[in-house]
Amino acid sequence: MPARRLLRIGDLSPADVDALLDAALWYFPHIAAGELKLTTLRGFSTLLMFFEPSTRTRVSFELAGKLLGSDTISVTSSGSSVEKGESVVDTAQTLSAMGFHIAVVRHRSADSVELFAEHFAGAVINGGAGRGEHPTQALLDAAVLTRAGMLEAGRHLAIAGDILHSRVARSNIALLTSRGVKVTLVAPPPLMPPAWRAEPPTGTVWETDLDRVLPEIDAVMMLRMQRERMGGGMLPPADEYSALYGLDARRLRLLRPDAVIMHPGPVNRGVEVVEAVFADSRCRINEQVTMGVALRCALLCWACGRPLIPEEGGL
Amino acid sequence: MPARRLLRIGDLSPADVDALLDAALWYFPHIAAGELKLTTLRGFSTLLMFFEPSTRTRVSFELAGKLLGSDTISVTSSGSSVEKGESVVDTAQTLSAMGFHIAVVRHRSADSVELFAEHFAGAVINGGAGRGEHPTQALLDAAVLTRAGMLEAGRHLAIAGDILHSRVARSNIALLTSRGVKVTLVAPPPLMPPAWRAEPPTGTVWETDLDRVLPEIDAVMMLRMQRERMGGGMLPPADEYSALYGLDARRLRLLRPDAVIMHPGPVNRGVEVVEAVFADSRCRINEQVTMGVALRCALLCWACGRPLIPEEGGL
Amino acid sequence: MPARRLLRIGDLSPADVDALLDAALWYFPHIAAGELKLTTLRGFSTLLMFFEPSTRTRVSFELAGKLLGSDTISVTSSGSSVEKGESVVDTAQTLSAMGFHIAVVRHRSADSVELFAEHFAGAVINGGAGRGEHPTQALLDAAVLTRAGMLEAGRHLAIAGDILHSRVARSNIALLTSRGVKVTLVAPPPLMPPAWRAEPPTGTVWETDLDRVLPEIDAVMMLRMQRERMGGGMLPPADEYSALYGLDARRLRLLRPDAVIMHPGPVNRGVEVVEAVFADSRCRINEQVTMGVALRCALLCWACGRPLIPEEGGL
Repeated sequence: MPARRLLRIGDLSPADVDALLDAALWYFPHIAAGELKLTTLRGFSTLLMFFEPSTRTRVSFELAGKLLGSDTISVTSSGSSVEKGESVVDTAQTLSAMGFHIAVVRHRSADSVELFAEHFAGAVINGGAGRGEHPTQALLDAAVLTRAGMLEAGRHLAIAGDILHSRVARSNIALLTSRGVKVTLVAPPPLMPPAWRAEPPTGTVWETDLDRVLPEIDAVMMLRMQRERMGGGMLPPADEYSALYGLDARRLRLLRPDAVIMHPGPVNRGVEVVEAVFADSRCRINEQVTMGVALRCALLCWACGRPLIPEEGGL
Repeated sequence: MPARRLLRIGDLSPADVDALLDAALWYFPHIAAGELKLTTLRGFSTLLMFFEPSTRTRVSFELAGKLLGSDTISVTSSGSSVEKGESVVDTAQTLSAMGFHIAVVRHRSADSVELFAEHFAGAVINGGAGRGEHPTQALLDAAVLTRAGMLEAGRHLAIAGDILHSRVARSNIALLTSRGVKVTLVAPPPLMPPAWRAEPPTGTVWETDLDRVLPEIDAVMMLRMQRERMGGGMLPPADEYSALYGLDARRLRLLRPDAVIMHPGPVNRGVEVVEAVFADSRCRINEQVTMGVALRCALLCWACGRPLIPEEGGL
Repeated sequence: MPARRLLRIGDLSPADVDALLDAALWYFPHIAAGELKLTTLRGFSTLLMFFEPSTRTRVSFELAGKLLGSDTISVTSSGSSVEKGESVVDTAQTLSAMGFHIAVVRHRSADSVELFAEHFAGAVINGGAGRGEHPTQALLDAAVLTRAGMLEAGRHLAIAGDILHSRVARSNIALLTSRGVKVTLVAPPPLMPPAWRAEPPTGTVWETDLDRVLPEIDAVMMLRMQRERMGGGMLPPADEYSALYGLDARRLRLLRPDAVIMHPGPVNRGVEVVEAVFADSRCRINEQVTMGVALRCALLCWACGRPLIPEEGGL
């Protein structure tokens, strides 16, 4: 079997996506209850190769791996010989030759994740690639939407904020539009990719006024204001951003009672969402995190060619 | 069962302390002999969340967790998204939602450890909180004193050096005075908390002359000179500090033959203690380290609501 | 049994080396096939103590340890209290008192690895010591040469490049010359240790012209240009280095058809070797990496006094 790759949502067939979402929903209650411990991936080794700092994605994958019995080894560019100028290609070839079965790779350059995958023999999962894609985030978001009954044709979801720098938005657009979900991108012109200002991706529309959109939608994904990816000068100051694209008490009232609120995290509290959002029953932000571990359990099994859920169907 | 918290010594009942010390003494010889490997905590996951660098405390907890069969995942602020401004609250909520059963938390701000605990659903253990408390150090010290027959009412112990910045001193004062041990704090005025200069904590007295105290005591805890916590100008230079509060060959002779010498580490050799101290039969510094792993084994079991020592009573 | 030490190749008897190479060749195909998972070292704990950044050596040891069932804990100076001035001696004593069975130690000062070993009770393996030795690299190189039928008296191997700063060269010279392999050191005067310019080590000769050496040899080890170890001004710029000591398409044609090409990594591509080298059938650079995990499996067993390969002789 050739090694499996998940570099972008388009790498998965619709049947793959269905199977992964089903399995994520199977794992979810076990993760939430803190009662999962399996040996599905005993004998497999998982490399967490993070050229860019991350807490949640790295820990989520590492925990998923350990819960399934995989060995896991974490490498971050801080403290690694990447600091010595070792190239991405050399790193990939070296770690590949050690026999790792899976590599989860994050890099601030999308091309570097591709390059890594080209030189790594085992399965490769994109753990966040610059301004490219972040497919596991889109999959876990889709699992949360499935659980809420909203991953269906005709549903309407808004993605609001810094679309320009967001790999989360790119992967979500690809997955959601493939399922017939109508996606409205809400952002000011400087935070939209230039090409999309003229023509948004198929299945999406572009709006600039969040207040007008909120009453009409089934779900909203607030994006992180990626201060660290800004070149300077492109982005409004945090308070102005918050006034225009932040989810605050007033805007919470504009959302329908059965709407779903999401954010990929980490959250700049008081900027993209106010603290009160977390107490709102429509907020699924913590559920996204739990589902992240569940989805990654399913995905690591997929990457190893193992059944996505334990064969006996239970623990 | 609500999640257990150990943020300060006061969180433990006297019975809790007794049980933890008993269990630490059970683990101690097995750790010392390098022959402990259990499955008590299989299926539990332990997060080591260190917002401040640490070798000994992090490794001690991580080793204890692994020896008991827990999964362990380490996060340090270097290399984590904490660098991206992710707040302590957001980090706590996120890692909580992943389903970790235990978080060991260190932060240079005592308030931040509290804040983390408020937003984390599982058990939380304070792994060192700014100038607040460091309860596991006090517990392991108490276990060493128990082993030496000195955790008894009427015994007399001195804590010498930089009391002002020492969370170790705060936790030890709380635990030792609760057992009726008389505690003498030995420090120059600038290294005493201002409030304690007027009135030392109940059960303690304040002295400035180490030479006068040493012949009278059963045990001495030398504190680390916390250079990195100084604001500048408050502390005497190392050689002056050493002359006033360092344990050297002359002062070793002032101590009683059956006295106990302790230091929480890391030791600035030649400053707080000279090298010869390590060769002195009264020195328990390395025993403290071994006991640290033993105590943390007991504590992780306590945090998970498991029996503190294996039920069959053996390996 | 006193704790085993591998600080330099000279610490091993010829029989030790034979046994380690045999065992490495046993592990090699299992590592290459990604099908190794044992419990040989269950109950043992391995510390990876890296005072100097490293990806490949740390990960190679950590993976080997996990594949054998050892607990592994990694400490790097970044994020550790070494930053707080904790001395090497204090670190060694502390980690020793925690009961680790093995420490793999890397430090930019060769003396510091020795110092660590003096204060650590368990087994100690040198994972790279300044300009001193890097014995596990030499052992894995010897295993690759054995596999190629070239670790034999009368064979001729060249070590080319920055001999001065290379601990890899020092350990390889010790091991290869002990087996009667003729070693030619190829370097310009500034990159040879001053003492060796007058008299190269027994069993070696010194050449400066790589082109003249290449047609005569059975194997060539290209060394990494250690930019980060240079004091400035000593080394030619990369393009000049490459012209004189880089393995490029023209020089590949000078090598014999059955020659072996090696490099300890990480490779500065385009400096020491051009990209085409990796596609050349004589290149064993990736095999060295795989053998690195295999050799370290054998070595960790040796360090613990366990049979070097599973007693049943299989998986």
